[in-house]
Amino acid sequence: MNNIKIVGVGSFVPERIVTSEDIDGLIGKEKGWTAKHIKIKERRYAEETVSIMAKKAIENALEMAGIDREELGIICYTGVSAEQPLPATACSIQKELEIKNTNVLTLDINASCISFITALDIIGKMMDRYKYAVIVSSEKGSECLNYKEPESSALFGDGAAAMIITLSEEKKSGIIYSKFKTYVEGIRYCEIYAGGSKVPPNIKNITLENENLFKFHMNGPKVYKLASKYLPIFLDEFFEEAKITLEDIDVIVPHQTSKSSLEIMGRKLKFPQNKLVDIIENYGNMISASIPFSFHCALKEGRIKRGDKVLLLGTAAGFSIGGLLIEY
Amino acid sequence: MNNIKIVGVGSFVPERIVTSEDIDGLIGKEKGWTAKHIKIKERRYAEETVSIMAKKAIENALEMAGIDREELGIICYTGVSAEQPLPATACSIQKELEIKNTNVLTLDINASCISFITALDIIGKMMDRYKYAVIVSSEKGSECLNYKEPESSALFGDGAAAMIITLSEEKKSGIIYSKFKTYVEGIRYCEIYAGGSKVPPNIKNITLENENLFKFHMNGPKVYKLASKYLPIFLDEFFEEAKITLEDIDVIVPHQTSKSSLEIMGRKLKFPQNKLVDIIENYGNMISASIPFSFHCALKEGRIKRGDKVLLLGTAAGFSIGGLLIEY
Repeated sequence: MNNIKIVGVGSFVPERIVTSEDIDGLIGKEKGWTAKHIKIKERRYAEETVSIMAKKAIENALEMAGIDREELGIICYTGVSAEQPLPATACSIQKELEIKNTNVLTLDINASCISFITALDIIGKMMDRYKYAVIVSSEKGSECLNYKEPESSALFGDGAAAMIITLSEEKKSGIIYSKFKTYVEGIRYCEIYAGGSKVPPNIKNITLENENLFKFHMNGPKVYKLASKYLPIFLDEFFEEAKITLEDIDVIVPHQTSKSSLEIMGRKLKFPQNKLVDIIENYGNMISASIPFSFHCALKEGRIKRGDKVLLLGTAAGFSIGGLLIEY
Repeated sequence: MNNIKIVGVGSFVPERIVTSEDIDGLIGKEKGWTAKHIKIKERRYAEETVSIMAKKAIENALEMAGIDREELGIICYTGVSAEQPLPATACSIQKELEIKNTNVLTLDINASCISFITALDIIGKMMDRYKYAVIVSSEKGSECLNYKEPESSALFGDGAAAMIITLSEEKKSGIIYSKFKTYVEGIRYCEIYAGGSKVPPNIKNITLENENLFKFHMNGPKVYKLASKYLPIFLDEFFEEAKITLEDIDVIVPHQTSKSSLEIMGRKLKFPQNKLVDIIENYGNMISASIPFSFHCALKEGRIKRGDKVLLLGTAAGFSIGGLLIEY
């Protein structure tokens, strides 16, 4: 067990609510289609940049932690919605926070939708050398939606969530076990094909005809099939290796991929409804911010308490699966 | 000290050589301008994608390590030139390597030009749980050059370099000390402003007039001033905290920012020429691949030997400075 303590959790969502009826209009479907098929009532779309959303989530987490922003030794941005291609988004966040301290390690970690748990696991290992680290996920999926793909474009919502960690003195909280797997057979099922170094964004490459290559694409049925096939195996391995059972876990915070993915978890994985945090109807899929944001919701509702064993679990473009068992 | 051992180092450069005279033509300067002002004779431009270059560098490193690709437990891509916005470039690299093993943690770490040393430091901490990790930097700066900015566009070259690490059983090799600082006062001096979530690549945002916002911009004199001001302070702190002196260090592998930045190191920081690895004339600034690529060059030339204390040092967009002292 890696003895870290989560001392602060914070989150932020932008003001603008986009309802399922709004989405019906955007994707050119009859009224009621989104609510019926996607089962997400509303999500938020941001005017703010990801670094401004991150700043607000971090300020919220700092308040809970009761520490000053100048005490942060690591600022780790995790996620897909990098503010600019260069420099790292963590630098933009440090600037937004107006931090004067220069003794700060700034970096971005990207592992698609499981970025946050990947970063929490890794940055957790650094806490012997840094007093406080903040891991913040801030996503603006609304910027790369392809409304010609109704299923995928109706899913996403914007927002941010942050956790502040420190080395635990009590030696009874921390990361109990983590596991990550990558199944590249699914690499094309969920992607933004263009906009990186393979197809750089320039006048020559971006045309009206191919603009959608720069937007999010998902083959929902294929991703669903992969997740249904591999999630049960992943969890069997996870539980065996971590030497725990489902009964030992107090709360499960899954990535809010889609309503149907959350249903798999109930039906196929036998996750009891009372242990499963499900907020997708009100916020949609917030990409890598989903897990820490859902964690914060559950914390505020009193569903997660000190000492609870919490399983953070997600699937991601790649196709990857990640699980992190923590004692909060 | 974090006891890891570098068991494999590999690199790759594309075939196409772009000389200073070629650059003179591209940037619209008289013949001889680039050679005289930029002091870089040649650099490579890639046809390959970053994941193909990464694959070749990793295969080269696997050969030295004498291990099979299926033994890699972590594939960490580090750098700025992500292949696609989604999924993580590490997944594309796993796919290119045709790795069948799914027990792989795939992630991207971005800290601009010091991505590699940041990732080596962090992934090094994970080696109690993974047998082998590969950290690979692959950069294709040639895709985002703005030839209206002669100084910055003449600097960059493409290429890749990889290191494979494992937990050291000998307990006498590894990471002795690391330090990272971020000075966000310099955030605008070196950046690619557009192409991320702040100004997404779409038909509306990208026009002939503003296309250069999607390309690399550097205010050379301002970056030079920041580096001259903060590098000496950084190093004083580093040496004091690590309890070493310049004399204790066998080889210094700096980021190959520019010829003038390497000159600061000799002149202002008093780095002896025989300890300083300087390959910029033949390869240019390879962004985050510069440090591991230079390391590999020095290794092949016999300048780095087992047991040597090597300082990896770089400045980065952000503005950040990072240093990693290892015992090879």
